[in-house]
Amino acid sequence: LSPDAKTVQVLRDMANRLRIHSIRATCASSSGHPTSCSSAAEIMSVLFFHTMRYKQEDPENADNDRFILSKVSQAAWVSWFIWSLLLQRLSFVDVATGWLGQGLGAACGMAYTGKYFDKASYRVFCLMGDGESSEGSVWEALAFASHYNLDNLVAIFDVNRLGHSGALPLEHCIDVYQKRCEAFGWNTYVVDGRDVEALCQVFWQASQVKNKPTAVVAKTFKGRGIPSVEDAENWHGKPMPKERADAIIKLIESQIQTNKNLEPKPPIEDSPQINIMDIEMSSPPAYKVGEQIATRKACGLALAKLGHANDRVIVLDGDTKNSTFSDMFKREHPERFIECFIAEQNMVSVALGCATRGRTVAFASTFAAFLTRAFDQIRMGAISQININLIGSHCGVSVGEDGPSQMALEDLAMFRSVPNCTIFYPSDAISTEHAVLLAANTKGMCYIRTSRPETAVIYTPQESFAIGQAKVVRHSVNDKVTVIGAGVTLHEALAAAEDLSKEDISIRVIDLFTIKPLDVTTIVSNAKAAGGRIITVEDHYPEGGIGEAVCAAVSMEPDILVHQLAVPGVPRSGKPSELLDMYGVSARHIIVAVKCILMN
Amino acid sequence: LSPDAKTVQVLRDMANRLRIHSIRATCASSSGHPTSCSSAAEIMSVLFFHTMRYKQEDPENADNDRFILSKVSQAAWVSWFIWSLLLQRLSFVDVATGWLGQGLGAACGMAYTGKYFDKASYRVFCLMGDGESSEGSVWEALAFASHYNLDNLVAIFDVNRLGHSGALPLEHCIDVYQKRCEAFGWNTYVVDGRDVEALCQVFWQASQVKNKPTAVVAKTFKGRGIPSVEDAENWHGKPMPKERADAIIKLIESQIQTNKNLEPKPPIEDSPQINIMDIEMSSPPAYKVGEQIATRKACGLALAKLGHANDRVIVLDGDTKNSTFSDMFKREHPERFIECFIAEQNMVSVALGCATRGRTVAFASTFAAFLTRAFDQIRMGAISQININLIGSHCGVSVGEDGPSQMALEDLAMFRSVPNCTIFYPSDAISTEHAVLLAANTKGMCYIRTSRPETAVIYTPQESFAIGQAKVVRHSVNDKVTVIGAGVTLHEALAAAEDLSKEDISIRVIDLFTIKPLDVTTIVSNAKAAGGRIITVEDHYPEGGIGEAVCAAVSMEPDILVHQLAVPGVPRSGKPSELLDMYGVSARHIIVAVKCILMN
Repeated sequence: LSPDAKTVQVLRDMANRLRIHSIRATCASSSGHPTSCSSAAEIMSVLFFHTMRYKQEDPENADNDRFILSKVSQAAWVSWFIWSLLLQRLSFVDVATGWLGQGLGAACGMAYTGKYFDKASYRVFCLMGDGESSEGSVWEALAFASHYNLDNLVAIFDVNRLGHSGALPLEHCIDVYQKRCEAFGWNTYVVDGRDVEALCQVFWQASQVKNKPTAVVAKTFKGRGIPSVEDAENWHGKPMPKERADAIIKLIESQIQTNKNLEPKPPIEDSPQINIMDIEMSSPPAYKVGEQIATRKACGLALAKLGHANDRVIVLDGDTKNSTFSDMFKREHPERFIECFIAEQNMVSVALGCATRGRTVAFASTFAAFLTRAFDQIRMGAISQININLIGSHCGVSVGEDGPSQMALEDLAMFRSVPNCTIFYPSDAISTEHAVLLAANTKGMCYIRTSRPETAVIYTPQESFAIGQAKVVRHSVNDKVTVIGAGVTLHEALAAAEDLSKEDISIRVIDLFTIKPLDVTTIVSNAKAAGGRIITVEDHYPEGGIGEAVCAAVSMEPDILVHQLAVPGVPRSGKPSELLDMYGVSARHIIVAVKCILMN
Repeated sequence: LSPDAKTVQVLRDMANRLRIHSIRATCASSSGHPTSCSSAAEIMSVLFFHTMRYKQEDPENADNDRFILSKVSQAAWVSWFIWSLLLQRLSFVDVATGWLGQGLGAACGMAYTGKYFDKASYRVFCLMGDGESSEGSVWEALAFASHYNLDNLVAIFDVNRLGHSGALPLEHCIDVYQKRCEAFGWNTYVVDGRDVEALCQVFWQASQVKNKPTAVVAKTFKGRGIPSVEDAENWHGKPMPKERADAIIKLIESQIQTNKNLEPKPPIEDSPQINIMDIEMSSPPAYKVGEQIATRKACGLALAKLGHANDRVIVLDGDTKNSTFSDMFKREHPERFIECFIAEQNMVSVALGCATRGRTVAFASTFAAFLTRAFDQIRMGAISQININLIGSHCGVSVGEDGPSQMALEDLAMFRSVPNCTIFYPSDAISTEHAVLLAANTKGMCYIRTSRPETAVIYTPQESFAIGQAKVVRHSVNDKVTVIGAGVTLHEALAAAEDLSKEDISIRVIDLFTIKPLDVTTIVSNAKAAGGRIITVEDHYPEGGIGEAVCAAVSMEPDILVHQLAVPGVPRSGKPSELLDMYGVSARHIIVAVKCILMN
């Protein structure tokens, strides 16, 4: 649908006014990206005042079309912020992209949610830079969107030829972008990014296409409209020189013919009312003390149960569902399971997208080791303060035969460094089910670390769990040492305690339950009650894990000593119990460490 | 070039013998991937006994063709190990791929080195799985290889339709693989992966193509040759049932017609002799005490200087060269600079590939925050024990205006968790130059953390530096507290010391120089000499950084207390000095912390 000539002129004028504002704002703050803003001015003007349907006064309305600004880095924020002022404070920023190549994955999650969970009319638009299209995560997202027929998704490639430090590999080879998008299954249009009328047309055409996402490859020029800056290198991220700004603004102003503004179209109001608050399980955990079950399996069972408790609970996995046991959720709730294949970066971004505006309670699982692949997405997810839950199975040397590439021995270091991330490390099936339920009801990012081997159930179904609350699972008045374990090592600690008791050495054993936040009060009071000696034992490298967390927590306590047991270096493969012993975190090593610390 | 009928039969027979060996071996160990091995048996047979040129008795010879096994996980190692026994112990494994989607990037590095640095005849072959082609890193590598015309590189996609937990998104849509590879600029052949003759032909054709890498898309069947297992789901990573193994082996044996073996062709011996040992700078650092220079800039200058010291020093960057200052190296050694664009995963993999067999001394730089993108590649690089050097600039809140997405506040946690990684965190230009030189001469992975703001030179050109050796930069007999800083916070600590001295409070200041290994001896002896009180101050989150490293190092010392100053949560953007103060790591906060610890 082509707009009339008058509308076209108003859209052009609005684009030029955006240009002027970005030059003014960046000049004033001496920081920002006026040249990048300039290349996309017409695209923004058409999207916001012709194509998209939304309530200006209610930017977070569930029925609004979504807009994801993937191309700009936080560095450009200043200038884009001014745009949003101009656009009457549209807070159209669901995810902090900030770093490049992550926006499209989040957009995929929003589009998947709109099409399959909300079954609503809202559409999703993602503005991308050409520089960021070198990121593999972009191609993971492109493959995902076509595989799932996301016809409510439009990606706009703003191909302005220039990157941060020079020309980009494909420069203005628009046809290569087109071929790649088509090969990845997208309905693709090539357009002159300065041509307001053509942009209106392709966005309308995109809305008519069924079962395919649409890519709009727009040829643009960085610094468009600014003499001797347009399409020139060395202007990335630089404001215009103050002495030139007035002349540049005057030149752009001379092209403005109207002083009208356009109103956006209202959204179609067909998103369902949902409630994801205060989710409760229908029954307490159904395990018996002593029963043998792996926490990864208990986690799969808990997810399936949680799916019955709330119909907005969804689960994503990266081609590991038969090992993480997320297939148990899939079996009972197939329409709420998203197979993301071997593309962990995209899986995390899709989960973030699904969870925006509180539309779903998203859990994404894979081997904990493979979550390292998505550290940047995890980092940015935390900055965006989105509520998602990540599950990492197969942690530590207890993985066994599969070898070091499959063993997560750095995941606690990674997630502990994520601000406000809640880290659950359950040690039996009962506490695993509680971890899953608590994660579903907790704001921000949650991480659940699960183990491969079967371990005994140690808690009763009536036991209650809370974030930041450790459990003292064994104690007596004669305790001489406190041993802190988690997951498989808690069971090693309990076995050590049993053996030591035969030699009349009594030790206290603590199950942390959450590694972050850490229950410092329980740790300190118990350590003081048990001789001021702590031994930590973890199936993780020494750096950044449980041991260092405990050392830091008691570093100002003169009467508490801490001895760390952890996996000292790259392990080899073998049987789980052999490896726990070989790398110093078995009951035998705990016994030696207890005796050793008591001798000093 | 087609082989004669007899050779074709021998290659077929060798493929079937590989099948039998993989079934036997995995049955014996009750672990492994016989079905994945089976799909690629003909490809392996043709590559190793018809196409590739190498010295069987000298697998690491520089002139040999390279082979990268990307498709299998470590889990498959058992069965592939048996293959390598059969292949007369070819240790053709330069990089531990183990986890999927990383092999092609490393292969790109080897091919780039062969074509541009060695200018030699050896070729590079990478066998990939279809499952791993969902990983974005694969598409980063595909784009890289065609951009740099790597015509000595062949990627074989073993498209056997099935993944870990079910059918893959593209199943047997060979034409889609073909279109995608072609769109990414590769010369592409489609072939029946069971057809030995066709495989011989396409590998020969690949050798004739100029300026383009070649992709061979091979349609194969998982479990090929095994009745009721071939192309069936639920057999991934499972040995054959012992009771069926004999019948299966008998069936495969019945197809074997010869008992001959073939010898590989010898390599063309045209790789240059090189020496990368004991690299020395031509002159000591040329900075004066008090001079203002950012460590990121000193790093760029040191790299340029190092490039003159040894002609195998190379530098890679991810479209940030004008900010990391690696462009200083590019200016003086343009033929040894590799622009990797915005694709950090691939940049790290390429660097690993370039460094295999000691062919180059590779440094790869980008913003430290963006290295989180490559955590899995870094993790696997450490497992492979390859000598590479990573440089992360723009660490911490001292980045300033660019905002939290650009600030690395978790990079120390990440690199500390990497086994055997040496972490340099230089605090001035002199120590930065030493860090670069030491990294060039150090085995394993090295990481250099550099800062954006200008800071004063504090060391003289004659100062000597060593790994694991901290510097006590300020001390007196009256010291009451030891403050440990690094980078910008060391300068804050020195300023605090100056101010405190006016109030007659004397503090000791330590520059760690390397965060890993940590100079525990110097820390402990100085802490004991200065009242047993340590304050750590770092431009990093509290978790996994300098503070926790120090806490862990002194956790068994009853007479030493540690107080941590670190950035407590997600920062906002602002001026560097304002942010250091706002987030509690400025001189002012150190002064307060010193007074506070002295009161307790």
